[in-house]
Amino acid sequence: MFKYSPHPLSPLSIEETNLARDIILANSSSEEVVQFRMTYTQEPKKAELIPFLELEHSGQLRSDTPRPARCARVHYVSTGKTQKDRRATEVEATVDLTEKKIVSKDVLGSEFLAGLSTWEFDILVDVCKASPMFRERVAQFELPSGFDIIVEPWPYGGMDRPGELRRYFQGLCFAIDTSTKNPDSNYYSYPLPIIPVMDFEKREIVRIDELATGGGDDELVAKAPRTGPIIEHCAPAEYVPELLPGGTRKDLKTLSVVQPDGPSFSVKDESLIEWQKWRFRVSFNPREGAVIHDVYYDGRSVLYRLSLSEMTVPYADPRPPFHRKQAFDFGDGGIGHAVNNLTLGCDCLGVIKYFDGVLVGADGNAEKAKHVICLHEQDNGIGWKHTNWMTGRAVSTRRRELIVQFIITLANYEYIFNYKFDQAGAISVETRATGIVSVVNIDPGKTSLWGNVVNPGALAQNHQHIFCVRIDPAIDGHKNTVVQNESLPVRRDARTNPNGNFYQVKDTILSTSTSADACPENNRVFKIQNLDKKNPVSGRPVGYKINPPPTQKVLADPNSIQAQRCAFATHHLWVTKYRDGELYAAGEYPLSSKRESGGVADMVARNDDLLQEDVVVWSSFGLTHNPRVEDWPVMPVEILELNIVPVDFFTANPALDVPSDKDITSKLTNGACCKSEAPRL
Amino acid sequence: MFKYSPHPLSPLSIEETNLARDIILANSSSEEVVQFRMTYTQEPKKAELIPFLELEHSGQLRSDTPRPARCARVHYVSTGKTQKDRRATEVEATVDLTEKKIVSKDVLGSEFLAGLSTWEFDILVDVCKASPMFRERVAQFELPSGFDIIVEPWPYGGMDRPGELRRYFQGLCFAIDTSTKNPDSNYYSYPLPIIPVMDFEKREIVRIDELATGGGDDELVAKAPRTGPIIEHCAPAEYVPELLPGGTRKDLKTLSVVQPDGPSFSVKDESLIEWQKWRFRVSFNPREGAVIHDVYYDGRSVLYRLSLSEMTVPYADPRPPFHRKQAFDFGDGGIGHAVNNLTLGCDCLGVIKYFDGVLVGADGNAEKAKHVICLHEQDNGIGWKHTNWMTGRAVSTRRRELIVQFIITLANYEYIFNYKFDQAGAISVETRATGIVSVVNIDPGKTSLWGNVVNPGALAQNHQHIFCVRIDPAIDGHKNTVVQNESLPVRRDARTNPNGNFYQVKDTILSTSTSADACPENNRVFKIQNLDKKNPVSGRPVGYKINPPPTQKVLADPNSIQAQRCAFATHHLWVTKYRDGELYAAGEYPLSSKRESGGVADMVARNDDLLQEDVVVWSSFGLTHNPRVEDWPVMPVEILELNIVPVDFFTANPALDVPSDKDITSKLTNGACCKSEAPRL
Repeated sequence: MFKYSPHPLSPLSIEETNLARDIILANSSSEEVVQFRMTYTQEPKKAELIPFLELEHSGQLRSDTPRPARCARVHYVSTGKTQKDRRATEVEATVDLTEKKIVSKDVLGSEFLAGLSTWEFDILVDVCKASPMFRERVAQFELPSGFDIIVEPWPYGGMDRPGELRRYFQGLCFAIDTSTKNPDSNYYSYPLPIIPVMDFEKREIVRIDELATGGGDDELVAKAPRTGPIIEHCAPAEYVPELLPGGTRKDLKTLSVVQPDGPSFSVKDESLIEWQKWRFRVSFNPREGAVIHDVYYDGRSVLYRLSLSEMTVPYADPRPPFHRKQAFDFGDGGIGHAVNNLTLGCDCLGVIKYFDGVLVGADGNAEKAKHVICLHEQDNGIGWKHTNWMTGRAVSTRRRELIVQFIITLANYEYIFNYKFDQAGAISVETRATGIVSVVNIDPGKTSLWGNVVNPGALAQNHQHIFCVRIDPAIDGHKNTVVQNESLPVRRDARTNPNGNFYQVKDTILSTSTSADACPENNRVFKIQNLDKKNPVSGRPVGYKINPPPTQKVLADPNSIQAQRCAFATHHLWVTKYRDGELYAAGEYPLSSKRESGGVADMVARNDDLLQEDVVVWSSFGLTHNPRVEDWPVMPVEILELNIVPVDFFTANPALDVPSDKDITSKLTNGACCKSEAPRL
Repeated sequence: MFKYSPHPLSPLSIEETNLARDIILANSSSEEVVQFRMTYTQEPKKAELIPFLELEHSGQLRSDTPRPARCARVHYVSTGKTQKDRRATEVEATVDLTEKKIVSKDVLGSEFLAGLSTWEFDILVDVCKASPMFRERVAQFELPSGFDIIVEPWPYGGMDRPGELRRYFQGLCFAIDTSTKNPDSNYYSYPLPIIPVMDFEKREIVRIDELATGGGDDELVAKAPRTGPIIEHCAPAEYVPELLPGGTRKDLKTLSVVQPDGPSFSVKDESLIEWQKWRFRVSFNPREGAVIHDVYYDGRSVLYRLSLSEMTVPYADPRPPFHRKQAFDFGDGGIGHAVNNLTLGCDCLGVIKYFDGVLVGADGNAEKAKHVICLHEQDNGIGWKHTNWMTGRAVSTRRRELIVQFIITLANYEYIFNYKFDQAGAISVETRATGIVSVVNIDPGKTSLWGNVVNPGALAQNHQHIFCVRIDPAIDGHKNTVVQNESLPVRRDARTNPNGNFYQVKDTILSTSTSADACPENNRVFKIQNLDKKNPVSGRPVGYKINPPPTQKVLADPNSIQAQRCAFATHHLWVTKYRDGELYAAGEYPLSSKRESGGVADMVARNDDLLQEDVVVWSSFGLTHNPRVEDWPVMPVEILELNIVPVDFFTANPALDVPSDKDITSKLTNGACCKSEAPRL
């Protein structure tokens, strides 16, 4: 069916990506230097895509069916060829790959900074190493012999100095013990109390911020630069197995997931996934990672699009310049180059399908990013069970889940994202936070109210991680309504509640765009319903519900730059009216922003009518992370989950027909030794 | 080491249980009839057990070490031999099994009812079937041919009629379609609108409550008994696979968990479990099911005891007598006879160790309850991961968990309880609610604000499930302190918070017994700390924290009998001072109670000093369950989890030494077909 051209939702191929580059370069002048940031599929306007998808789902698609234009979106920066021409023009162009022409070209306003690119980070490291100012400053530390310097590039948080917005980056500095002869020795246990700041356009270190190293009773600002021995009181904290003092434990026996008949899913067309009555597409782009599209269950539409929209990680240490430690890990520059290349037998078990991605370097050349998404099944315990108390007959089914996983590494830290589909019609978005907590140097013997000492000399600062998941629903169609649903106590009264056991279940239609908050004390859930379609059994509108995780919202003072940059993190839920291209909760350009612009708060402010309209739901949730010693040197996963669950969408439990057969490979043991009693099959 | 006598924490053997029976009967008079309710290990007083456990942990235990007396606790009812002597004396005796004598005998006060026994439920069914009143009433329903009557025994909720407390039970009635020739045909889809009430002492049906069958606009009380056709508008809703109209799905491929080298755990002495530095005992008793004792990690004490203490399920339909649908599934009579006999390859996968339990019948004879607890390992995704962005080297470990599982069936409904231990020092208590939601008859075409129509004629009533987990901590010793810990916003100010990014982490010691609530907006957690022991790295007290699930509390009017019976469900957390025998959140005798007595609220009211004392923490959490059509006929699991997590207890991530080896059995697939690409191993 798709022999002739790619599906409109499929990611760009290597060839298409290179073609986009060629078209951009062919249209550039000989006076300009073009450096590419990212190239990805320009998804068609929804109004153009829906008719195509409807033909597809109804089986009427033919090879000559007209389809939306196949376009690439290309972000690039254009500069002059001489040093004084370094002031950049940031361009986002849409390229029609069939017509081979640029169809639109947007120049970024000077009030924004374009998202950063990995090649800029490389330049920061090079500039630091070449900078006399930086070299002299570092030399003032009397590092023990065998220690080298590591500069870890970070985005520069909200611009809080007067004057124009400049393209700054900052470097967090550590020392690495080369005497281990192991390049993976953990340098984070040797933090240095300086942060060099680079002006990217000038390619120079404009300042070195000096960090205070005191504890809770000391001053916020370092009185004088720290010199002399600075990591003498620090200690190793290795995590690679060959450097662990005691090696790895020996008493963990193999546990394998075996699927002798292969997986239960099928993948067609490199993006279409079918599994247990689910049918959806997965794509990869450099801004959002894995994205789920056009989700159907048993021939019925559920979601148009599901994505990780944004996240922010504000740090709470009040000592300047730590307020500029605030990452927007998706929006600062896209997580494309931060994505892990997943490894068989490590990042998931069983039978695994990997998807590759396509990224570009500064030259715009397509690079295959291998195994950036994995698809696999997992068993998650009992799915449903009932025993007839009279006959003793038990019927028990397992809960099988399909997982679309991707993982990103941002300097010290990692996030694992799982889209999970189950057999009972539910979808979950699971986040796992792991990696190495960010630490700064603290004087020997001191403790701090700004964080926790997790290794000698290493203070892990308190911080938050706040995610935003974007849900573009299509519950039996694109016109949906969001209804707040609460269970509320009711006073005892003779007429309606004579014994006081009644509680009221109250629906409130969110009829205009709005923010809302979780309220577990009211069992508040949000139903996304199609009011035009009633469930034939219950008579209620068909829908899905989300129970927004009632986690802590952003803690920074509402007037602070930190808080103003992430309005999306000030409420748990945002309900907006769909507009093409509105994909990012904190707006398109959070890098070094002073306030959120074009994000969910701005969308909500339009006061759009949302009664049976094309609604979009944004769920913000997160983790206030006051580090434990146990989070060091690599923290055990902290898991959060957002559930999107059918409510009167189906006419019965969709998992009712899951087989309840026994798994014949399970074995008994008496636990007396570590071998199973029964012979292996 | 334990050749000579059982460990004080081990459950009673068959022989010990029968010995207890013999001792009771030998001490009873010829004038009395003794009927047994339950027999289980009388756990030693903590003050007696601790010295023994300390010797055990320090390796100094010898076969002649004095040990606490080995005792059984026996609940029985004594009646006279004639019909008029039916008024029962409820006795709870402690029997010294070594000395072979009764050491204490407590007679239950008349203000309480003893927990019910399965044999009483059997009597209810028999009495109903024999009752002319019941038979005549049922005959007024014109049931279609082939339908039989099912009476499902339930506890009678809070006694709300004037006069003395009598021993009542109630029956929920359904019709079963025998034309299916299948005894597991789902009778819940044919609810009958009557509830017979039995006076147990009289062995007679004293009343038949008539149920209203209207919808939201109808009267609360049935104007007249419903007669004539009553299930004509109902429809089948089968769940056993052979009765499913379309059979079971065929596209789910096998997924097996294979442990070729056996499990990583060992079981000694039939109760001592060792796994991945954890060491604890598991026991089974008829009131609480599986209980975890004496939990150590790597030689350090963590918990003295961990148990499911109670749960309540109040129904919210205001129409009398539905306010008496309120189960206390642990306390109404113990879940012993409700416990499932677990099946290999159904209730868990991999290599499984089963534990049997011992229960008694009315004659006091020990009966082996087969496979009431299972012990197994599971993989739960990535445990920790870090990729060095400079070298590209990823270290990724799996998260292996050890599960102690038991499952109970209470008429229509099931609960799955998992105690989970992980490699990073954390313990979780997971509850899964499944089974068949409780339904009542509703007239054709009507809907209701008291529930949801999930099948024609079947209204699933709104209700709550509120659990209480009892945590008896022993964090590096038995003197511990509970500290409420919150993350709170701080106004920007020039001196302490110049950029407004700081937030305060505030500790509040709970120095006297108290209740407390979850407060996710403050990221409120509760640390159980040993203030006398500091973490050598952070300098903070060693501890574990719990993040009480911030679920909705009991909704019934505070003055209602429903709410008064479950004070434990009115707050998320209770902190009390340990007393021997105080194990039950709603008190020992919730059956048909009017108010909680001897439960957590009464314990808290003692205002005990809790600063570095032997504290007990009780966590109440639950599920407001407004049924979806998808919950029918058997609902997909609803999962809740309570996490007990180390916080500065260890000096690093305890899972750091987990091997990061690849699983070599994982396979690639291209997803094009359903077979894996690589050959099977």
